[in-house]
Amino acid sequence: MPSTTMPMLETYPKSINLDRAKLAATIDALNDCAQACTACADACLSEDMVAELTKCIRTDLDCADICTTTARVLSRHTGYDANLSRSLLEACATACKSCGDECARHADMHEHCRVCADACRACERACRDLLATMS
Amino acid sequence: MPSTTMPMLETYPKSINLDRAKLAATIDALNDCAQACTACADACLSEDMVAELTKCIRTDLDCADICTTTARVLSRHTGYDANLSRSLLEACATACKSCGDECARHADMHEHCRVCADACRACERACRDLLATMS
Amino acid sequence: MPSTTMPMLETYPKSINLDRAKLAATIDALNDCAQACTACADACLSEDMVAELTKCIRTDLDCADICTTTARVLSRHTGYDANLSRSLLEACATACKSCGDECARHADMHEHCRVCADACRACERACRDLLATMS
Amino acid sequence: MPSTTMPMLETYPKSINLDRAKLAATIDALNDCAQACTACADACLSEDMVAELTKCIRTDLDCADICTTTARVLSRHTGYDANLSRSLLEACATACKSCGDECARHADMHEHCRVCADACRACERACRDLLATMS
Repeated sequence: MPSTTMPMLETYPKSINLDRAKLAATIDALNDCAQACTACADACLSEDMVAELTKCIRTDLDCADICTTTARVLSRHTGYDANLSRSLLEACATACKSCGDECARHADMHEHCRVCADACRACERACRDLLATMS
Repeated sequence: MPSTTMPMLETYPKSINLDRAKLAATIDALNDCAQACTACADACLSEDMVAELTKCIRTDLDCADICTTTARVLSRHTGYDANLSRSLLEACATACKSCGDECARHADMHEHCRVCADACRACERACRDLLATMS
Repeated sequence: MPSTTMPMLETYPKSINLDRAKLAATIDALNDCAQACTACADACLSEDMVAELTKCIRTDLDCADICTTTARVLSRHTGYDANLSRSLLEACATACKSCGDECARHADMHEHCRVCADACRACERACRDLLATMS
Repeated sequence: MPSTTMPMLETYPKSINLDRAKLAATIDALNDCAQACTACADACLSEDMVAELTKCIRTDLDCADICTTTARVLSRHTGYDANLSRSLLEACATACKSCGDECARHADMHEHCRVCADACRACERACRDLLATMS
């Protein structure tokens, strides 16, 4: 099932100040990363060695919240505010970097951390790519 | 880009009390519907006839919030509580039905309402399908 | 600092189908419970015996998400849908009951679970009180 | 009913790298601002002149999402990451400034915009105060 992000963007009745394909790719990466982080936090909670994964759970929770909020803000074009989008994308890239780094430390041991680290890396890249077009 | 929902579910270290394929499909439908509703609310805001779309915006906002929360709850398996999942899925199906009905009323006029109504219908169906397996 | 919930309700330009004082009290209880659950989940994560608190963390996360969403839906009056409010309030009362019960099991040992259990009980009561006026 | 933010902070079992009173005040201001913005967006939707308030609705929705997420991140202390808190607080202060400015433009006409502008100003100030202690 392909995501409805791009079809919805195409129906927006006014102009959009950003490249629509890049924007849709970023929103999809954000939603995907939020989903991976929510699932990774719960998978960590179910590991016997959860005591060694508490920082990972915390960065997962932060990253999920920030990615969901960033996807929502980027999905709104009415009264567009480049300043806010830029500032939030920077915070989001920081969250993805932290969470990707933390998950990567556990990737050899826990497959969910490996998949989640990949989603965080892809999302960080998408945020930075979009930021680069907003100068 | 395929979603990470199913790959993440496959890495969960303990057993899951639900059919994994059906669960993943429901989570994907929820995230997709949340994204469509967030975008539809904003597209409605940008229409010249926004005054006739205020109820649609409201149901979009509710549906987006409820779908995002339901996707999160369904993504957690530690200390699974069938009672809560069931109750929330019922509220979510109600939200998707309301929003799908409201968007369908504007679908001829506004393409974003047509795409969003489809996402709501698909999500309502997925919630009810999953509920049917939880009896 | 008193909450702005009641002052904001008083500025709503159209009629509201519910008792405003009861509605404001419920929204405040929901936001308070969401805050307590988010903090309790993190406090549990920092306990040395986190392995015994994983179910509590999970119910905290669910309850925080559901209370935040319920507060948002109850804060919207445009195109009011009693059916959806009722269904969501029932799911929310279920989440508060689960989380209150789970936190109460750890209340002797962990002060954060005691405070959080109280917030969950108060919120469950507020949801049920409001539901009782919606028959 | 006083908020449970400070009582919960006092039960946190490890050390916290920030001034607890200032932190609690910021979290309360964030939750209050999120509530005001959610209610203001809906009140705007119910105004007959909604067509002139679409930018206000949009900044309200953004500000509510960002404040809720910032309150959650600031409520977590396990594996504290000053870098992320700082970056998110800056994005949040930007959102509160935008929303406060936009609501202030309608404050003479709409009481909900006046109350919401005050909540945004208070929240922006709290975010900047906390940022000033994090250098």
